[in-house]
Amino acid sequence: MSPESTPRRFSRRGLLAATSAAGVAAVAGAVAGDATASIFGGERARQVGARRIPFDGRHQAGILAPPAAHGWFAAFDVVPGVTVGQVESLMRTWTRDARLMTAGEPVAGDDSMALGHGPSSLTITVGFGPSLLRKLDAAVQAALTPIPAFPRDQLDRERSDGDIGVLLTADDAIVVAHALRALSRTARGTAAVRWQMSGFNAADGVTVAQGATPRNLMGQVDGTGNPKPSDPEFDARIFADDGPAWMHGGSYLVFRRIRMLLDSWDTLSRERQEQVIGRRKDTGAPLSGGTEFTPFDLDKQNPDGGLAIGPSAHVRQAAPATSGTWILRKGFSYFDGYRADGAPDAGLLFLAFQNDPRHGFTRIQQRLALADELSRFIVHESSALFAVPSGTDPHGYIGQSLFAAL
Amino acid sequence: MSPESTPRRFSRRGLLAATSAAGVAAVAGAVAGDATASIFGGERARQVGARRIPFDGRHQAGILAPPAAHGWFAAFDVVPGVTVGQVESLMRTWTRDARLMTAGEPVAGDDSMALGHGPSSLTITVGFGPSLLRKLDAAVQAALTPIPAFPRDQLDRERSDGDIGVLLTADDAIVVAHALRALSRTARGTAAVRWQMSGFNAADGVTVAQGATPRNLMGQVDGTGNPKPSDPEFDARIFADDGPAWMHGGSYLVFRRIRMLLDSWDTLSRERQEQVIGRRKDTGAPLSGGTEFTPFDLDKQNPDGGLAIGPSAHVRQAAPATSGTWILRKGFSYFDGYRADGAPDAGLLFLAFQNDPRHGFTRIQQRLALADELSRFIVHESSALFAVPSGTDPHGYIGQSLFAAL
Repeated sequence: MSPESTPRRFSRRGLLAATSAAGVAAVAGAVAGDATASIFGGERARQVGARRIPFDGRHQAGILAPPAAHGWFAAFDVVPGVTVGQVESLMRTWTRDARLMTAGEPVAGDDSMALGHGPSSLTITVGFGPSLLRKLDAAVQAALTPIPAFPRDQLDRERSDGDIGVLLTADDAIVVAHALRALSRTARGTAAVRWQMSGFNAADGVTVAQGATPRNLMGQVDGTGNPKPSDPEFDARIFADDGPAWMHGGSYLVFRRIRMLLDSWDTLSRERQEQVIGRRKDTGAPLSGGTEFTPFDLDKQNPDGGLAIGPSAHVRQAAPATSGTWILRKGFSYFDGYRADGAPDAGLLFLAFQNDPRHGFTRIQQRLALADELSRFIVHESSALFAVPSGTDPHGYIGQSLFAAL
Repeated sequence: MSPESTPRRFSRRGLLAATSAAGVAAVAGAVAGDATASIFGGERARQVGARRIPFDGRHQAGILAPPAAHGWFAAFDVVPGVTVGQVESLMRTWTRDARLMTAGEPVAGDDSMALGHGPSSLTITVGFGPSLLRKLDAAVQAALTPIPAFPRDQLDRERSDGDIGVLLTADDAIVVAHALRALSRTARGTAAVRWQMSGFNAADGVTVAQGATPRNLMGQVDGTGNPKPSDPEFDARIFADDGPAWMHGGSYLVFRRIRMLLDSWDTLSRERQEQVIGRRKDTGAPLSGGTEFTPFDLDKQNPDGGLAIGPSAHVRQAAPATSGTWILRKGFSYFDGYRADGAPDAGLLFLAFQNDPRHGFTRIQQRLALADELSRFIVHESSALFAVPSGTDPHGYIGQSLFAAL
């Protein structure tokens, strides 16, 4: 544990009184809550801006956080010639600053961009690409085996991969922009942004309050079948507790930028769209019947003898019953203007967390690339793979046990 | 008045009972409110999603609407060879669909993208570029004289100008994306998107509740000096009541994409940044003293004899006392990833409404281009000018009195 990584805004009294990690987190929460209450005047702002997701914990917070209104992803490459010590130092600084910002506190040299905005449910989750591990002369675990190429991939290598990946989520876009600027400023000389993409979901409250799963730009509910932390097998499927020590409580993140061919999609009737997905558009219920959360009945037949959920329906091919595997998906829609061909440059920033991508995303995508009818309406344009290390205790920093072992 | 422009979802009984424009609007409000209440379960969602800004009125709603969390702008060009009748028909269709969507109702052939999201304060504001008027063989009023080139402009002509400009604002990004898709779908064959940009502000509630002006990505409050509708001269300065009949209650919109050189800006100390702007960063108060809304004292001297608000401070050069003119500014921050040179492609989508850009934006910008120290830290990358016609009555459509006179 290093004194540099201690958040600077905790009162000495608070730190002395806290005898456990949970105690420190509680103190930090109380401090952040007080500061926020004095800045905001209204109940709604308190709800939107003051909601705070603790930074420290067994897992990095972005993995299990509820859907946020904004999700941005930035991939950094370390500057040629940097030392292991410089990268370690950056992780200490980022951890310190992430703790401050997720508590709604300014960082050193703060640019004031988000002054008064509160934590706004900010999460900052950091992953290490295989290229970083090689540069650090660290062992690259088998779970970081490259994602294979798939037949319809149109990957832009300049917007793929990266030494360090950072997922930033919050309910306020300014809070995300401020955090990204702060991280890239402190990285100067050690790492620089390789690529960055911004996505969004429903505004804070809308999705949660209506009790529904977010919709993607195709108008389909997206994420219904996600495994739940209450599932008995959840931890074993999503977290990498059987990997190297620095990954215990960590996970592997597959990032894909998936452009949607919305103009083609729009030419399909609603019925055809529902057949391609395998769910109703309005309620999200499987075509085999029931409500959104009714399990698929993959054998259910229509009166004409055909399968209710067709052989190439997306949900059939992606379902754990077919693929034999589970991933925790997180999606953010993007809309980046229009392409030269007149089509919207829009789709889904797709993130999947799992305990081993070889048996998670890759296995599912191998099925989808072969048999999923939806694949005619989407194009994978960017891909990246990161090891997301364990979460931190309140005095630790991201990747600490990796650096300790180098 | 045309039957095609009647919103299709009003009940016959409601329409018959309504004997005035206000009556119809009230009916529409009640319908939207009921539908929304049945979709949303929670109070917060009702606040964020159900808030509705009436589409019809003397002015198009986006001009005076409060700051929204999301502001997207799309410029369309009409397809070569279209007739005046096709453009008029598009305006009828857009008006009908804008009325539905701003009330949280689906349009014909709706893609379900925003199903259940509510109106979310959606506004849709349409302007006509001088190029459209020429294509319609309509007179081009002097107020549409092109914005002159300024010394530091680096305009991308492919992302400038346009026949039709549409400002979409809402507190939920999905609601904006859905509306843009709906408008571009019905435009097919008549007009196509020329360029589109997306911006954001604080999440719904945060800015309003803290009683503060939005901050831009430089961390400065931005918009403090905006004229207020309660100012006695407001209407004369912002609305074009002395122009052609179709512009009564309308306004002229200048759009500029202004990239911020954030890495250079960050190298300045807070004191230098404040001198460049002429306001404190934390409170937004003028350097001549007081609080955010204290009027500038442009003659105030520091103890050393220098001007408290320096000769080239942004607020001095832009202030009505110096420029002799007033514009109603609306800004949305953008963050579009990173450029090849490693700098963030980020800044401000700047919109200014005024009764005549020759005496509004152009006069101010001529001063700023010469003397504003801030101009070293920004680059104007795109420019467009639109005549924003009168608002609509509940049976009318956008530009109706222009088309009636052709």
